[in-house]
Amino acid sequence: MAAASPVEAAAYMAQALRLAERGSTSTHPNPRVGCVVVRDGEIVGRGWHERAGEAHAEVIALRQAGDRARGAEVFVSLEPCAHHGRTPPCCEALVAAGVAKVWVAMEDPYPAVAGQGMNRLRGAGIEVDCGLMETEAESLNRGFLSRVRRGRPWLSLKLASSLDGRTAMASGESQWITGEAARTDVHRLRASAGAVLTSSATVLADNPALTVRKGLEPGAALRQPDRIVLDTQLRSPATAQVWHPDARRFALTVRPRGAMVDRLRAQGVEVHLVRAGPGGQVELGDALRVLGTAGVNSVLVECGPILAGAWLRSDLVDELVLYLAPLMLGSDARPMAQLPGLRQLSERVQLTFTDVRQIGSDLRIIAEPRLE
Amino acid sequence: MAAASPVEAAAYMAQALRLAERGSTSTHPNPRVGCVVVRDGEIVGRGWHERAGEAHAEVIALRQAGDRARGAEVFVSLEPCAHHGRTPPCCEALVAAGVAKVWVAMEDPYPAVAGQGMNRLRGAGIEVDCGLMETEAESLNRGFLSRVRRGRPWLSLKLASSLDGRTAMASGESQWITGEAARTDVHRLRASAGAVLTSSATVLADNPALTVRKGLEPGAALRQPDRIVLDTQLRSPATAQVWHPDARRFALTVRPRGAMVDRLRAQGVEVHLVRAGPGGQVELGDALRVLGTAGVNSVLVECGPILAGAWLRSDLVDELVLYLAPLMLGSDARPMAQLPGLRQLSERVQLTFTDVRQIGSDLRIIAEPRLE
Repeated sequence: MAAASPVEAAAYMAQALRLAERGSTSTHPNPRVGCVVVRDGEIVGRGWHERAGEAHAEVIALRQAGDRARGAEVFVSLEPCAHHGRTPPCCEALVAAGVAKVWVAMEDPYPAVAGQGMNRLRGAGIEVDCGLMETEAESLNRGFLSRVRRGRPWLSLKLASSLDGRTAMASGESQWITGEAARTDVHRLRASAGAVLTSSATVLADNPALTVRKGLEPGAALRQPDRIVLDTQLRSPATAQVWHPDARRFALTVRPRGAMVDRLRAQGVEVHLVRAGPGGQVELGDALRVLGTAGVNSVLVECGPILAGAWLRSDLVDELVLYLAPLMLGSDARPMAQLPGLRQLSERVQLTFTDVRQIGSDLRIIAEPRLE
Repeated sequence: MAAASPVEAAAYMAQALRLAERGSTSTHPNPRVGCVVVRDGEIVGRGWHERAGEAHAEVIALRQAGDRARGAEVFVSLEPCAHHGRTPPCCEALVAAGVAKVWVAMEDPYPAVAGQGMNRLRGAGIEVDCGLMETEAESLNRGFLSRVRRGRPWLSLKLASSLDGRTAMASGESQWITGEAARTDVHRLRASAGAVLTSSATVLADNPALTVRKGLEPGAALRQPDRIVLDTQLRSPATAQVWHPDARRFALTVRPRGAMVDRLRAQGVEVHLVRAGPGGQVELGDALRVLGTAGVNSVLVECGPILAGAWLRSDLVDELVLYLAPLMLGSDARPMAQLPGLRQLSERVQLTFTDVRQIGSDLRIIAEPRLE
């Protein structure tokens, strides 16, 4: 059996990561995992995890490899599990298949794994290498990792504005600020985040569905994103489109009582109590904690300027996604975020640009808040 | 003598254009011109125009080629001149040198040339090819071409703002919104434009020098940009830094009378009468016409939000250059441009993004107004 050189190993791990990516819109709340089995310089098995409750990447890849897994090298983007979840542990399958070596991109911080998977493999005499392309593996599962490590989902705040930072005319007129390509891109973000969060104000004003358009990415399994409404006083009507029962739905409120609660629960909406902040509104940090406990990995926030401003003033935004349309709406128009009361430059929200690209006729800017 | 193939010809013309670029900060009000002389597949002469009143690109290149110019092919980025200006006509030099063929990227629309240069060459039995890399040649001299064709300079409006479209806190506090690299880039824009325009309000508030920092681009000849102040009531003090006598200086006013006029003129400032617009301010279109007549090719506008808004509402902006800093200043902060009174989306200023790049920690976005 020929052992993979470092360059070959990176190429195989990159393939495992690419396979894992196929689960981007479907594995929630599980992590995205890909696996490649290599025997004598040939890939004899490929697998990726598609959906919670279904087979793990390693099991699929080993099944495909069959007898050729004996003595093979296995490349997996996350530490194989050692515990019985909804499926048997992958470690046992790797041991039973008689593989020679397992390359693991990163340790799984999930408490039931957390190094025990690799210990089990080593205990069975299998060579284990951990850390190859770890940065890429971290990035692939930033939602899952946020929930496991911080107890809360990864949070992306999506905004769309004109070049002069406006979202709508003073009258509220706001149709078609960004183009068709940018709007399609938002559907991709929703699919990838797995959950979309908005406010009851937006539900009442626009009654958005916050779903993913079908047929966006042929071949990818379509799973509608969970919908989360910050609904301090439970004002969103039970007939709102966000409550359509094609995904998990959450109403986060400071008073989970009364007929409205019963009505929503009867529709399958999960109504959660969240602490009130100083202004009586749902406290944002507590809302994220509640969502983390409920198994939400990653949230895309799509809301109006008031809630957007509140998120920006919190230190809870992991990533800002701003679609910038090539137009100026003027200084009377509405701001992208209500961030009043900043008096001095030292109070500014400081960011770092991490990605900029043109999407149709618009720009998409991704920025991360920078702690100073 | 081997004639250049189309691919070879494009490569030689590209070299002529690169040579022409060396004059980017120094040829005003003349166009940027580069020239390459090719004999038997070898470049035997190179020239570029550096400064008005000094030798033209063709003459320098022919001088370098010497006897080898006989029977050579010449690549020049703009039609050779046929008239006696401050230097003798280049056409005569080309004829006298006995060149076989002249490749011209574009006709010079300047009335004293306008095809007569090429006619003169053809009349002397020299083969002429016009139009190779014409788009690039147009772009290189957009300022000169604007003045000759439209009677007014090319106008770039420079703005700098936070990601939410703000330039300063409500208090006016505004230091360090963009980083050092972006500020250096502005100096390059100034050098390339050749003239910087601001308002008397900015002169009174900030007393900027609007010069180019020395040592920016080693090797490039440093020529300080002309300074233009829109000074409706001639309020800029005679001691303002913009009036430092290292370049041409223009005060554009609606009433060129009184002691202030004499004082400015005594310092060499060119005081011009400009029509008043509806609000009594200098009318922007007339200001550009006056500058075109005075020989200004290209203007970089650096001003506050009120004048920026006025330019944006005019249809006179050829290009918007926006430096976007990775921070949010909040909805109380001052807007990048005072554009009040836009009531409906249909009144928006529509643009097209033409270039986006990261400069230090900031983004630089170039956009062109789109006529609808």
